[in-house]
Amino acid sequence: MLIGLFKEYESQLEEIFTYHLGLRHDDNAGKRVRSLLLLLCTEGAGGDWKKAIPAAVAIELIHNFSLIHDDIEDRGEMRRGRMTVWKKWGLAIGLNAGDAMFAAAFNELRNLEKFYEPEIVLESVNLLSKTCLELTNGQHLDIEFEKRELVSEEEYFRMIKGKTAALLACSCRMGGLLAGKNWRQQAHYSNFGQYLGLAFQVYDDWLGIWGEPLITGKSNFSDLIEHKKSLPVILGFQYFPGFYKKWNEGIGNEQDAARFAEEMIRLGIEKKVLDKVKELNKQSINNLYKMDCSSDIRGILEKLANNLIVRDS
Amino acid sequence: MLIGLFKEYESQLEEIFTYHLGLRHDDNAGKRVRSLLLLLCTEGAGGDWKKAIPAAVAIELIHNFSLIHDDIEDRGEMRRGRMTVWKKWGLAIGLNAGDAMFAAAFNELRNLEKFYEPEIVLESVNLLSKTCLELTNGQHLDIEFEKRELVSEEEYFRMIKGKTAALLACSCRMGGLLAGKNWRQQAHYSNFGQYLGLAFQVYDDWLGIWGEPLITGKSNFSDLIEHKKSLPVILGFQYFPGFYKKWNEGIGNEQDAARFAEEMIRLGIEKKVLDKVKELNKQSINNLYKMDCSSDIRGILEKLANNLIVRDS
Repeated sequence: MLIGLFKEYESQLEEIFTYHLGLRHDDNAGKRVRSLLLLLCTEGAGGDWKKAIPAAVAIELIHNFSLIHDDIEDRGEMRRGRMTVWKKWGLAIGLNAGDAMFAAAFNELRNLEKFYEPEIVLESVNLLSKTCLELTNGQHLDIEFEKRELVSEEEYFRMIKGKTAALLACSCRMGGLLAGKNWRQQAHYSNFGQYLGLAFQVYDDWLGIWGEPLITGKSNFSDLIEHKKSLPVILGFQYFPGFYKKWNEGIGNEQDAARFAEEMIRLGIEKKVLDKVKELNKQSINNLYKMDCSSDIRGILEKLANNLIVRDS
Repeated sequence: MLIGLFKEYESQLEEIFTYHLGLRHDDNAGKRVRSLLLLLCTEGAGGDWKKAIPAAVAIELIHNFSLIHDDIEDRGEMRRGRMTVWKKWGLAIGLNAGDAMFAAAFNELRNLEKFYEPEIVLESVNLLSKTCLELTNGQHLDIEFEKRELVSEEEYFRMIKGKTAALLACSCRMGGLLAGKNWRQQAHYSNFGQYLGLAFQVYDDWLGIWGEPLITGKSNFSDLIEHKKSLPVILGFQYFPGFYKKWNEGIGNEQDAARFAEEMIRLGIEKKVLDKVKELNKQSINNLYKMDCSSDIRGILEKLANNLIVRDS
């Protein structure tokens, strides 16, 4: 699939791809949950997961292109235990490598043509391009929120719907699509992935404040110290007058952050966040049970969904 | 087409697109030569140019996404008489807006489905994604060349084949494809565009040293002062020992550059470059005459090809 993609160009891009994707022996390649969901949904919906591999590759490439660019946008220097692409090769090479990966994703979809009718392949292309619009729009909102003083809960959910949930929704819907499911069924697959993505992101926000640093790999109370407008903080803005001022001015070091995290538990914010995770997870599972899906794969998907929101990192 | 693309997302991305593309009244929108070529080739090959508009929009979006990212990569601050996107909105927003435009290009192709069979639309998608791989590979080489001491003529042509010629080749081939031409004919359309692109780029390199600043809008001898490894300089490396040292160490100001530009004329380098332009242009026109194309459109394409290489900017 990927190996050899740039062979005819005699280009270093292949080396960068291999590095970022973690394809070398012993490299951390990430959870690859999006491609896993796609293949499971294909098989569960009565299709053949092996035929759907090009779509799974494309989804994973889109996710990884977005990580390469995210790391430039927020100046992230480490990813999966390795230096980020832009940090290792410079901003210009890194930015362009992300673009190349974006192109490679769409290019990969042509390999579906071996097994599927052109109509189906074209629908996959359209689904992926629409999803990338949602993704970039979510990313835009995320960047913009950093510059703003206040963000509402509604705006937050609009942002993560694009930034996090859209690609998970796309992965699941693509499985239904490739297995020949109709639009109504595809919507259930899509909604399962979307709510899963929302639950995942909200839980990630919980981990960013109350997660165990030894396990998450993030520093203690990292999101508070970095003044990240994650959901817990946004709920604070929304429900407690004076919260913004305290959050904005009162956190200088880890001790302040620890005190603030405690205070947020007392205010009931931490519970609100976990309740939200449970609610979103429930909606995800509701959709899972509306999907025409073999019972063994449904069982795996349910387990996967539950594990994603009580995961450690 | 474009207006309204982000309506459902209530996003600022539409404003950024409108700004960069020059869609506001009186804005400089660029030459739009790629979409023009696509529509002319469609009509000349016996198709209906109006039906090909979504493809022309997609091509123009790909070109413009690459400009937004190029401007970040080389820190360009002005484009078409306006501040570049990253300069106006910041690097993170600008980078992501380029990604959004890339996604919008592929998303636009779905509008071909109104008039064309899925097989043809899918071939257009595949052609565009393959072209984007070539484009990013050419861009990679261009960035990499800046860091290297020497670049050979062969390497230079491999680079501009991706960076400049690939999208022009794609524009022309897409016209042939949408008009229903077979692969052999599509290859002639593609070659016409490719040689046109190569001639265009080599002439652009000529303009960068010997062009009239009042007309090109660039400063006098700009490529020499910026130590750009454009073709004239690469030919100097190749044919004249000691040229590299002089070029690398001897150009500090406009007077040095003027003297150097004169010297390059004496060495016959300037003539070599213009000969190359003529040769490439001839190959382009040769392919134009192999194309099944109506004689009136062929006449327009020939004029356009000749004008592109004696253009002022």
